[in-house]
Amino acid sequence: MVLDAFSQHYRQRVDGQLQAQLNALPELAPRLKAAMSHGLLLGGKRVRPFLVYAVGRMLGIADEVLDAPAAAIECIHAYSLIHDDLPAMDDDDLRRGHPTVHKAFDEASAVLAGDALQTLAFSLLTDGPMSGITPAQRLAMVSALAKASGYLGMCGGQALDLAAEGQRVPLAQLEQIHRHKTGALIECAVTLGALCQAEMTPATLMALQRYASAIGLAFQVQDDILDIVGDTQTLGKPQGSDLALDKSTYPSLLGLEAAQALARQLHDQALSALAELPYDTHILHAFADYIVERNH
Amino acid sequence: MVLDAFSQHYRQRVDGQLQAQLNALPELAPRLKAAMSHGLLLGGKRVRPFLVYAVGRMLGIADEVLDAPAAAIECIHAYSLIHDDLPAMDDDDLRRGHPTVHKAFDEASAVLAGDALQTLAFSLLTDGPMSGITPAQRLAMVSALAKASGYLGMCGGQALDLAAEGQRVPLAQLEQIHRHKTGALIECAVTLGALCQAEMTPATLMALQRYASAIGLAFQVQDDILDIVGDTQTLGKPQGSDLALDKSTYPSLLGLEAAQALARQLHDQALSALAELPYDTHILHAFADYIVERNH
Repeated sequence: MVLDAFSQHYRQRVDGQLQAQLNALPELAPRLKAAMSHGLLLGGKRVRPFLVYAVGRMLGIADEVLDAPAAAIECIHAYSLIHDDLPAMDDDDLRRGHPTVHKAFDEASAVLAGDALQTLAFSLLTDGPMSGITPAQRLAMVSALAKASGYLGMCGGQALDLAAEGQRVPLAQLEQIHRHKTGALIECAVTLGALCQAEMTPATLMALQRYASAIGLAFQVQDDILDIVGDTQTLGKPQGSDLALDKSTYPSLLGLEAAQALARQLHDQALSALAELPYDTHILHAFADYIVERNH
Repeated sequence: MVLDAFSQHYRQRVDGQLQAQLNALPELAPRLKAAMSHGLLLGGKRVRPFLVYAVGRMLGIADEVLDAPAAAIECIHAYSLIHDDLPAMDDDDLRRGHPTVHKAFDEASAVLAGDALQTLAFSLLTDGPMSGITPAQRLAMVSALAKASGYLGMCGGQALDLAAEGQRVPLAQLEQIHRHKTGALIECAVTLGALCQAEMTPATLMALQRYASAIGLAFQVQDDILDIVGDTQTLGKPQGSDLALDKSTYPSLLGLEAAQALARQLHDQALSALAELPYDTHILHAFADYIVERNH
């Protein structure tokens, strides 16, 4: 299957799973349920579920086993967006062209919806249908998702990002922010897919994690590059105009060309990690290509 | 051991555990770590950890096994207080005589500290030292804690409470709010202690949950009663003056005497559940007595 067809298929699949999970919640607190649904089902690329399915399929795992971890990691991502959009955080009114949860509902509902979506992620891993998966495997998934989401991962990265706001930070610190804020969860998506395979060798798991680590950072570098290229196209500003701003991005710290070289280097690291795997890696390969070739 | 000595011993024990858990976090994001610490270590009765230890000890479980679940459930409780105190929620500046997390730090830190404490709770259950506990038992603990904390439990209850604000609600709805908002986590504390015992019979587990359900609600009824009695002592208002306010409490819906009778009835339900248990229940018995006899 080519990348577009694969990713569209699994985007629809995880959307169906998420919708079904919310439908299954009783009408205990309708406004909270609606706020959770708004935050979870607004759309999005579903990159993390994609990676769970792509890695799992590569390892021969049935889709029905991958549904719960794919939905779980998207719940974590959705909760983080809801909370990041709050007035006290990034104060965003729109996400994906729709009002953010605190605008469509209210701040209290947004805080609670995020909280409850975090919890739902863990419930999906403990109680979601995963035929043939042992308690030890599920437990390893909960452990990995908690580590990637919390102080040592996403939450820590968001705190680092807030602390660096309006400052020019060294390159190592920028990388640290992104590796925690977004990289940890990208890596975890790959780990969750891999943990569905009971006979995973440490070597395979490490190669997959190197792949995930490289594409996670490449994704962010390319985002920073597109911010500049996008500006040029839409605003008519010269390329690199953000370089003068006191904002830490890969192009502002490295220059545009060096940032592009870094993205290519990370892409190559991802491919060399895949080359170690005794599996059909064409979807993961195509995804690494997409990350540095995409223009939006 | 009498109740006071027991509860003081285990309050100190869980405080030490929580402090050690925070100390073990690297200095990745110092402000976030400090905000988590502020919210977690401000003091408090530590009722939920107390119940984990009391049930676990009754069942012959070593304290070292109970430390992680006791700390985990307190992390959930602490996160909920941090988020409930936010301006968008209850807007409280003080908790236990100290500035709330968003006052001592800022709102973004308070949101993130709550988020990261929720995650830490699950990490403690997956990775905390629990010698002799199987992955299946740990997984059951994660499942129980997630269920009690999320939409079907605490978060749902907080949403119900917000929706009922400023309204006079029927008694059944008031009970539904409390059973979710506070009762679910109290019951979960007992469940976590019980799940440490692999040979737990369903009958014992059900009796323990009936005990927990009764004391959880009794705790809230007594709180409502003390609000009135406390007012009388400190403000010189006549007993029952809150009855006229458009606020739903057990005394306002039932009258003070009927509320006191309900608290006694719940206390008796708790004791009759304990009577079914083939264990030394004197600490749990004393705790049920304390709940309805306490005057602060």
